[in-house]
Amino acid sequence: MEGDSSLHLRVFDLNCWGIRYLSKRRQERVELIGDVLRREGFDLVLLQEVWSEQDYNNLKGKLGGCYPFCHYFRSGVIGSGLCIFSRFPILDTLLYQYSLNGYPYMLQHGDWFCGKSVGLVVIKISGILFNVYITHLHAEYCREKDAYLPHRLVQAWELAQFIRHTSKAADVVLLGGDLNMHPEDVGIRLLRGWTGLQDAFVEATHFEGCEDGCTLIPKNCFTDKAELLPFPLGIRIDYILYKAISSFTVKCKELKTTMGTAPGTDIPFSDHEAVMATLHIKKQGQAAGDTLATAEPVMADVVTEAQTEVGVGLQAAQRQRYSTGRMAVLALLLLLVQATAALGTLVGLSTEQPFPKLSFSLLTFAAIGILLLATSLHLFHITEVKMLQGTEEQMRMALRALQERP
Amino acid sequence: MEGDSSLHLRVFDLNCWGIRYLSKRRQERVELIGDVLRREGFDLVLLQEVWSEQDYNNLKGKLGGCYPFCHYFRSGVIGSGLCIFSRFPILDTLLYQYSLNGYPYMLQHGDWFCGKSVGLVVIKISGILFNVYITHLHAEYCREKDAYLPHRLVQAWELAQFIRHTSKAADVVLLGGDLNMHPEDVGIRLLRGWTGLQDAFVEATHFEGCEDGCTLIPKNCFTDKAELLPFPLGIRIDYILYKAISSFTVKCKELKTTMGTAPGTDIPFSDHEAVMATLHIKKQGQAAGDTLATAEPVMADVVTEAQTEVGVGLQAAQRQRYSTGRMAVLALLLLLVQATAALGTLVGLSTEQPFPKLSFSLLTFAAIGILLLATSLHLFHITEVKMLQGTEEQMRMALRALQERP
Repeated sequence: MEGDSSLHLRVFDLNCWGIRYLSKRRQERVELIGDVLRREGFDLVLLQEVWSEQDYNNLKGKLGGCYPFCHYFRSGVIGSGLCIFSRFPILDTLLYQYSLNGYPYMLQHGDWFCGKSVGLVVIKISGILFNVYITHLHAEYCREKDAYLPHRLVQAWELAQFIRHTSKAADVVLLGGDLNMHPEDVGIRLLRGWTGLQDAFVEATHFEGCEDGCTLIPKNCFTDKAELLPFPLGIRIDYILYKAISSFTVKCKELKTTMGTAPGTDIPFSDHEAVMATLHIKKQGQAAGDTLATAEPVMADVVTEAQTEVGVGLQAAQRQRYSTGRMAVLALLLLLVQATAALGTLVGLSTEQPFPKLSFSLLTFAAIGILLLATSLHLFHITEVKMLQGTEEQMRMALRALQERP
Repeated sequence: MEGDSSLHLRVFDLNCWGIRYLSKRRQERVELIGDVLRREGFDLVLLQEVWSEQDYNNLKGKLGGCYPFCHYFRSGVIGSGLCIFSRFPILDTLLYQYSLNGYPYMLQHGDWFCGKSVGLVVIKISGILFNVYITHLHAEYCREKDAYLPHRLVQAWELAQFIRHTSKAADVVLLGGDLNMHPEDVGIRLLRGWTGLQDAFVEATHFEGCEDGCTLIPKNCFTDKAELLPFPLGIRIDYILYKAISSFTVKCKELKTTMGTAPGTDIPFSDHEAVMATLHIKKQGQAAGDTLATAEPVMADVVTEAQTEVGVGLQAAQRQRYSTGRMAVLALLLLLVQATAALGTLVGLSTEQPFPKLSFSLLTFAAIGILLLATSLHLFHITEVKMLQGTEEQMRMALRALQERP
């Protein structure tokens, strides 16, 4: 760090792949992450997928001397997995949980249970107010037929809106995390364009690391090679983004990624590569103002593209809402027929019971089960439709605002 | 409205009691609300419990001429019920859904299904930037033994934090809504103290309406008289709160409430009374700055009191988490015993089936049902524990900040 008007900030970002009982060599890797972080002494450390609070506490214990301030963002059944370690005091925090995050019945994917969120911590360093955001968006399990794209776009939009609305008093905004989107994806263009955030990889004066800045690479022994087949170099889905709001400028002096193994070892930190940025923050005479990063007409196209995808998701959600509703009604009708038959037998209208007792009971239980399940799903899809409609409307409002700008 | 540096703003706030099929004379009252709003020509109208989107659309159609700008906040299964009508353009919106909001199994109360939220709309009037917040917190069903107090306190805290973090660029902050808290309740003191918001009823130069500003009164023909027995005058749970952030002052010139019937009719708008404020906003030389409304030591006491209540809720949630977990394990064990018995019969180890087929199947279905139910509840209570812990920690951080202030 230099005088009052200039500051070098070293930021570390990593998706830790810390799924209890599932992630390979988890405890060993958490130890390793702690060792390297202690040795390297960054200013800010942004970690995702620290699902186990025990892992967080171990890191906290180990890093207490070097990073005396930290925060763990709790949400959802499993947790948000997000945490921050900082050399500088954390003044305030806020958590915003995304309104859509996959489906509870997609147990094999599990995103729904994580309560994916964006966490904000406010930090003051040498008189400069930083709003630091950390997030992890819904994973992409199949790029060709990505059923989660509308949800991820809702998340990207909510992330952008949350940053815009909460960062107005900040001098500098930082966002780090696993966005689960490639650099050219509509969600990234939406987020960057709507917030004015710059991509540290694109802006870096000096870069050292995987080709194209990739953070999920075939060379890493923990990655799924089949998934990366269409991308021989790997993909870039972990980002450090930044912007100055008031009378400061931010430049990325250096960006590094790990390259398949942690520094000085033969095992990786995680299945993701770490991203490490050195930012140079400098006071300038004039306030930067809150401008879009993308020209209005281009931005309008991006919002329209995102809105179309959200619209596709909305149609699918409406179909699901309908089919689960119909299923619930059919199960209810079946139950009513059974109740009528049972009642008929009881009052002696029918001499014989229409079914053997066992089949009758099994059928009743099946109908009750289907009724409960279909009703729960129907309620879920009602909410999904509402949130997609809400996002579509917000995007429409944004488009109007863009078109009305002089 | 006067010159550039002074503005009179007329704000209308009402909980509309618009529950489809349940609220009495709903459509007639919505018509009436629309008629009066059109006639009176307020600047801003904040409505809660507009659960039916059809009702919102009817109001929108009717009020289009007088209030050309409006927004409906969608969330949850039933909806947030929140909407805003404005004479001035709405520049931006954001919705924050509270992380806790009652229990899905409390069907008779239903709050969980509403997705209770705070909505923000940004409006510029005569060059003054307004952040207008609208909300509706969890209802209080039994004041003596209020099981929802911890959840309502989490909501009050999240509301305060959301307002603090999103309002930093605003000139004036307005909050209207049904807070379901009496003026002296800890949640109101927490919200007001932590945000610096002032209570229009307390500050009003001129007041006209129900005694003590009550908004739920025995005189209203739709209120539950038994519930209001301990409060012969009624209770005040609907508020208009405000503060100036930058170089403006806000004064409440006049506050009115309806008194059991809508103006010029013999039926009420709702089971709640409407609150109508005339605010006078004036430019002053100096910026107001972001200060607490309550002195630090008093504020620390309020946060401590709130934290204690959240702690009580946390203990209850932990007990529920434990007992639902135990129930799930017991159901699983029962299923395992049954599976063993069934397997034993199948491979011929036991000559006779231990139970008659029908009882055996019924028991199996009951065990499966209990397992599913207990597991769902267990997951729910895990989330509840996490959110209560998160809030407790944020409050601890706030206390530290309060104690460290010079």
